[in-house]
Amino acid sequence: MKTFTSVKQLGDLGEALTQAAAVKADPFADQAPGRNKTLLLVFFNNSLRTRLSTQKAALNLGMDVIVLDVNQGAWRLETGRGVVMDGDKSEHLLEAIPVMGSYCDLIGVRSFARFESREDDYNEVILNQFIQYSGRPVFSMEAATRHPLQTFADLITIEEHKTKARPKVVMTWAPHPKALPQAVPNSFVEGMAMGDYDFVIANPEGYDLAPEFVGNARVTHDQDEALRGADFVYAKNWASYTDYGKVLSKDLGWTVTKEKMALTDNAFFMHCLPVRRNMIVTDEVIEGPRSLVIPEAANRVVSAQTVLKRMLESL
Amino acid sequence: MKTFTSVKQLGDLGEALTQAAAVKADPFADQAPGRNKTLLLVFFNNSLRTRLSTQKAALNLGMDVIVLDVNQGAWRLETGRGVVMDGDKSEHLLEAIPVMGSYCDLIGVRSFARFESREDDYNEVILNQFIQYSGRPVFSMEAATRHPLQTFADLITIEEHKTKARPKVVMTWAPHPKALPQAVPNSFVEGMAMGDYDFVIANPEGYDLAPEFVGNARVTHDQDEALRGADFVYAKNWASYTDYGKVLSKDLGWTVTKEKMALTDNAFFMHCLPVRRNMIVTDEVIEGPRSLVIPEAANRVVSAQTVLKRMLESL
Amino acid sequence: MKTFTSVKQLGDLGEALTQAAAVKADPFADQAPGRNKTLLLVFFNNSLRTRLSTQKAALNLGMDVIVLDVNQGAWRLETGRGVVMDGDKSEHLLEAIPVMGSYCDLIGVRSFARFESREDDYNEVILNQFIQYSGRPVFSMEAATRHPLQTFADLITIEEHKTKARPKVVMTWAPHPKALPQAVPNSFVEGMAMGDYDFVIANPEGYDLAPEFVGNARVTHDQDEALRGADFVYAKNWASYTDYGKVLSKDLGWTVTKEKMALTDNAFFMHCLPVRRNMIVTDEVIEGPRSLVIPEAANRVVSAQTVLKRMLESL
Repeated sequence: MKTFTSVKQLGDLGEALTQAAAVKADPFADQAPGRNKTLLLVFFNNSLRTRLSTQKAALNLGMDVIVLDVNQGAWRLETGRGVVMDGDKSEHLLEAIPVMGSYCDLIGVRSFARFESREDDYNEVILNQFIQYSGRPVFSMEAATRHPLQTFADLITIEEHKTKARPKVVMTWAPHPKALPQAVPNSFVEGMAMGDYDFVIANPEGYDLAPEFVGNARVTHDQDEALRGADFVYAKNWASYTDYGKVLSKDLGWTVTKEKMALTDNAFFMHCLPVRRNMIVTDEVIEGPRSLVIPEAANRVVSAQTVLKRMLESL
Repeated sequence: MKTFTSVKQLGDLGEALTQAAAVKADPFADQAPGRNKTLLLVFFNNSLRTRLSTQKAALNLGMDVIVLDVNQGAWRLETGRGVVMDGDKSEHLLEAIPVMGSYCDLIGVRSFARFESREDDYNEVILNQFIQYSGRPVFSMEAATRHPLQTFADLITIEEHKTKARPKVVMTWAPHPKALPQAVPNSFVEGMAMGDYDFVIANPEGYDLAPEFVGNARVTHDQDEALRGADFVYAKNWASYTDYGKVLSKDLGWTVTKEKMALTDNAFFMHCLPVRRNMIVTDEVIEGPRSLVIPEAANRVVSAQTVLKRMLESL
Repeated sequence: MKTFTSVKQLGDLGEALTQAAAVKADPFADQAPGRNKTLLLVFFNNSLRTRLSTQKAALNLGMDVIVLDVNQGAWRLETGRGVVMDGDKSEHLLEAIPVMGSYCDLIGVRSFARFESREDDYNEVILNQFIQYSGRPVFSMEAATRHPLQTFADLITIEEHKTKARPKVVMTWAPHPKALPQAVPNSFVEGMAMGDYDFVIANPEGYDLAPEFVGNARVTHDQDEALRGADFVYAKNWASYTDYGKVLSKDLGWTVTKEKMALTDNAFFMHCLPVRRNMIVTDEVIEGPRSLVIPEAANRVVSAQTVLKRMLESL
């Protein structure tokens, strides 16, 4: 793979899952392709899981890793064209990106939606400039509209735990104090379309995701109805797409509680983390025996390593 | 070793010193156990020596190292139970810790006393959660009540420089502008009990350390009397234990000066660093021929490497 | 080399360029000398190119690298002598430097001019303390008065692109919103004296560089006259040396535009980056076919690797 910005680029899911299982079974099996290859991880935003799991995945493959926090210890970057740069930004992305590309073999980029312009966010302005100007294969460590390494880890986790050929998976919106991007839910919808899942999205009115992501997926505004018979409950907050970037509700009636989980078919609980406890989900559900949040996070190494392996093969 | 939170866990001091000497003589002797092992260093607080020496020790052992500064580039962490997380903290330690554990083989944690609650500090709430929830061997890179890697380096340094079978070691309080934790002095008292030392603690009234650490150690409030005949002067500031976290004195009469050192038996001067010059110790003493602060700091690599080696052996 | 603080320490330029070409042709040719050698990079200031290219160069040589951002996650450092350290600085450079030296084999230091005292800056107080007290070979990653790794990369780039035995190289001042150090231009003047170049410096009145750097170089205050017939235009802003650290002009008449470039002999455009677009240079020039800024930045790896290789050989 020359880029990895959407989980759909994995192609056949079964094949990707087989590769992931092999990586998980023997993480150090093959370090030759990574030798003398340098991975640059560029963070425009905070990160815990992505930062650590992607480093670990690269180390497992024998690569060297350089981490760059753009807002700490580097220069602030201008992103607009034609600007007279007489302010506080010392460098333009148009120089910074090819320069970064000169110092590595592969680039991972984390750049969240900024909620300043839906058009800019949904055009993935930052990520696409990396693809266009870096001269290197680029993968997303969560961009404005997708978080494909997370979704692949989610798919691996569901496949490891499902007990039915076609499990019911419910992605439900849940309340959060701040405006969060739609990258994780958009990306999860893409992932659901890659396998055989009875998939339902539950969210309050005003929170429907972008039509180009929802596609034919079933959407309901009745959380209880969605949860009935669910095998997996995938909770996530996101800000409004239609009223872009706004927090229209903090309704704790959408929090995933023990009572809500009782509506399901003894479903597993999933969340990409970080999670606001007692907003998104109660302590007892997330700490309960059906919570998959930790194995799901652990699979981030498997997801990243499988993707990095493919990208290394294409160098 | 499955954890290393107190220098006492080293067991027999003579054996530990022999191992340390071997590590120092040939730091790269054995890198096989570290291969494909990842050490995660988690910093809740600033660090220079610990940050660098622990990395160097791990590299000497052939390990990979990932450094995480919790307050820079990661998410702010909630530590309380049952909290509705609607504030500025994005993630709970109860998720963050097992997630961190998923991405590494060993974890080092630096988490200072917060001085908000003596009970919480002395119960080592943060460090113990890492031990309980990470699923990995955990070692302290200075916690609320102890700094065992420092103490082990101190013991190595004293053993390298002592010229008497039973040297007199004086740990003296000295003034400092801010409230500092008791981790280093507590830990040093633990270390002194492991060998054959004529040990005295000198501090102003109101600065006696916690009884469970002091134990049977001799304590005096008369610095001059303590210093007489000393072979090693170990200076350190700490805030009050009884009036917890308070700065009761900035008395420069306790500063270690040339005149004070003249009371000793040509003692070596030691300090864990960082040190406030002309508060804790005068320029001429710390720059003088009997100052051990630099070899003491250099021994931090030896200390960390000896401990990491033992922990690797137990994986 | 035991230190590298000025490009002149490379000695014979032809020999250095030959070594650089060999490094560039086969960056992984020889990793044995770097094995079990740790490079410490100490940043007192922001960095993108230097941070990444020096890491990459060291990795290419098989070294381990530890990065320390002094103002993030470490202690604030006191640099004055005799100070009673009762303020916000926790550690003195006189301890910090030899401690850092204990944990590595080589040290790179970035420490810009502070513009508080021309004497201190031009005496390279910080860099020289590292040389004096660290006990390790030290190289500059841009100090107060020179940026030799940049200059060497500039020389490599010019040699790769020149089509005349003695090309005309014009270093021209250009406007910038903030006061910038003279390190890059000083250093570039030193580099020009090492080869066969028709070299001219163009700057407004009040912006003449320090006489000890300018030496016999030709200086003009007429940019247009300087540019005529140029083969390379090396743009750079710097603050006044005579009226030390002051911004005397932001005259956009000195911006390098298409019209200015038309005066040259189809010159290449060079800049060390980061560059303020439409202050230093217009979009169309920096994005044009004669712009060398990206290959020039890419050569920072070659420059650093050639220097590190020499320093490793002297260990």
